[in-house]
Amino acid sequence: MNDIQTLGQHTLTALELLGTAAFAVSGVLGAVRKRMDVVGIVVCGFLAAFGGGTLRDILIDRRPFFWVDHQLVLIAVLVLCVACASFLHRFDLQSSARLLQVPDAIGLGLFCSTGLHMSWTLGQPPAVAIMMGVITGTFGGVLRDMVCNEVPSLFRDHRPYALCALAGTLFYVALMLMDAPPWLAVASCAVVTTGSRLLTLWLNLRLPSVRSN
Amino acid sequence: MNDIQTLGQHTLTALELLGTAAFAVSGVLGAVRKRMDVVGIVVCGFLAAFGGGTLRDILIDRRPFFWVDHQLVLIAVLVLCVACASFLHRFDLQSSARLLQVPDAIGLGLFCSTGLHMSWTLGQPPAVAIMMGVITGTFGGVLRDMVCNEVPSLFRDHRPYALCALAGTLFYVALMLMDAPPWLAVASCAVVTTGSRLLTLWLNLRLPSVRSN
Amino acid sequence: MNDIQTLGQHTLTALELLGTAAFAVSGVLGAVRKRMDVVGIVVCGFLAAFGGGTLRDILIDRRPFFWVDHQLVLIAVLVLCVACASFLHRFDLQSSARLLQVPDAIGLGLFCSTGLHMSWTLGQPPAVAIMMGVITGTFGGVLRDMVCNEVPSLFRDHRPYALCALAGTLFYVALMLMDAPPWLAVASCAVVTTGSRLLTLWLNLRLPSVRSN
Repeated sequence: MNDIQTLGQHTLTALELLGTAAFAVSGVLGAVRKRMDVVGIVVCGFLAAFGGGTLRDILIDRRPFFWVDHQLVLIAVLVLCVACASFLHRFDLQSSARLLQVPDAIGLGLFCSTGLHMSWTLGQPPAVAIMMGVITGTFGGVLRDMVCNEVPSLFRDHRPYALCALAGTLFYVALMLMDAPPWLAVASCAVVTTGSRLLTLWLNLRLPSVRSN
Repeated sequence: MNDIQTLGQHTLTALELLGTAAFAVSGVLGAVRKRMDVVGIVVCGFLAAFGGGTLRDILIDRRPFFWVDHQLVLIAVLVLCVACASFLHRFDLQSSARLLQVPDAIGLGLFCSTGLHMSWTLGQPPAVAIMMGVITGTFGGVLRDMVCNEVPSLFRDHRPYALCALAGTLFYVALMLMDAPPWLAVASCAVVTTGSRLLTLWLNLRLPSVRSN
Repeated sequence: MNDIQTLGQHTLTALELLGTAAFAVSGVLGAVRKRMDVVGIVVCGFLAAFGGGTLRDILIDRRPFFWVDHQLVLIAVLVLCVACASFLHRFDLQSSARLLQVPDAIGLGLFCSTGLHMSWTLGQPPAVAIMMGVITGTFGGVLRDMVCNEVPSLFRDHRPYALCALAGTLFYVALMLMDAPPWLAVASCAVVTTGSRLLTLWLNLRLPSVRSN
């Protein structure tokens, strides 16, 4: 039993690192597309990887930040960004972005469920906890796009992304209100978020537009 | 007397909700103009409605935020944003923006005076309290425009807006330094801010430009 | 001895004010280039002058901010921004920007070393302290450019700026790990940062670009 728990813990850590790496690489791609130098590439990578969680921590006034306690992750992301920028000219930006979709969806699910659970256990009301979950999962990308001087793709690409996170958080809230064990609620949130994101990508779903005169 | 106090309290709450709604709708209009999807519309609405107060709370390190204690307002603004975006195609964006001017001016006056009074009662020096008041009233719109990838209209439209808030805050500081009752100072700040904003709109006043070679 | 200490303190304060002024003027130049009104000019000046230190204080949860305790500096920067905007039409934007390079480099060195030392004495790990130092020195400019709706020049001009700050912080960390006296480490950080920035400007050094298909 203990072995299985340890295995589960290791798997979770590995998935979280994979998600963080995917987010960081999305930052590198955004920066390279804007022809930024190495400083811009690293900052965009950091913002995409740590921005959502850091914004959540500022909003719920939680210190120290995750990356203050784990400077190794900080250094690993730095090395990843520089390495990625150095080798990127061998790849095509479009296909790199496509390769990221699966690890990115995993990151979305994990970070969203962690942020939500953190806010919920602080006793914040459901609507606020849901918002914190969605912000943790999605606002790294928003900060990345703002620094790249673009309208955040989260807001304009008419693909379900934040809405997948919303679906996951609703599962969590429903399970918690039915007194399910917290680990089940957290896992459901992550699975529903990641799963629905992958499903909408596969089905190529689009959100309706608002037309205005 | 008690009845009058209750009536006054209800009127104030109603005006604050009206101001919040006006700010939220200004966010929806900005998002629709940029052809954002429903996620962008809701985020822009939230930023415009709650961004100024939240930024002030971060700066003065005040928790919980207003909207953490009042999740109903959060949900109401969410519904308003979605409803507004759904029905907007029946209206003209220009005339909707014009309709917003009066409730927006009321919101500016109320939020500016609340933010100023909050900072002042914390014992912050006058220049800082004035800044906090102006930030509370105006930075929701700045955050909205930044997310919409525009130079904030507060900084470039050459209309007095922050300056009206500044005029109101100077009234407050003057009255407080003359030992006037706080409620009178707060009310004067709100009335002067809202009044001067409406007056400058009516007179179509413009700020001078800086010319550079 | 006491006289020399006092003289040193005064010199340091004078240099810090010079650096703050240079940062504020860079904000004014950015705002004028975007044809902003007086409100935009003042906000850009404030963001450039105080943004980096304020962001650092939010990240390390330090209150009150520097400018809350020193409202005179706040008022001085306000006056400087308005004065600068009023007289700017007599000067050429390009040559004004060039005049700023030396005081700006001094500000970079001083703010970077102060931010780094503050984070280090809080017991934060080296990689985090280095980041806080670089953020303190450089993110005022990033916020200024974001508000001006531009890709931050820190990220795209391919000139060493953040990298000079990084060089300085590495000197500090090396000296502190060798148990050198703190004042020496702080001074080295400031001198190396400012010196390397001036050197790279003089040598007209450029960072390599990332090429992508």
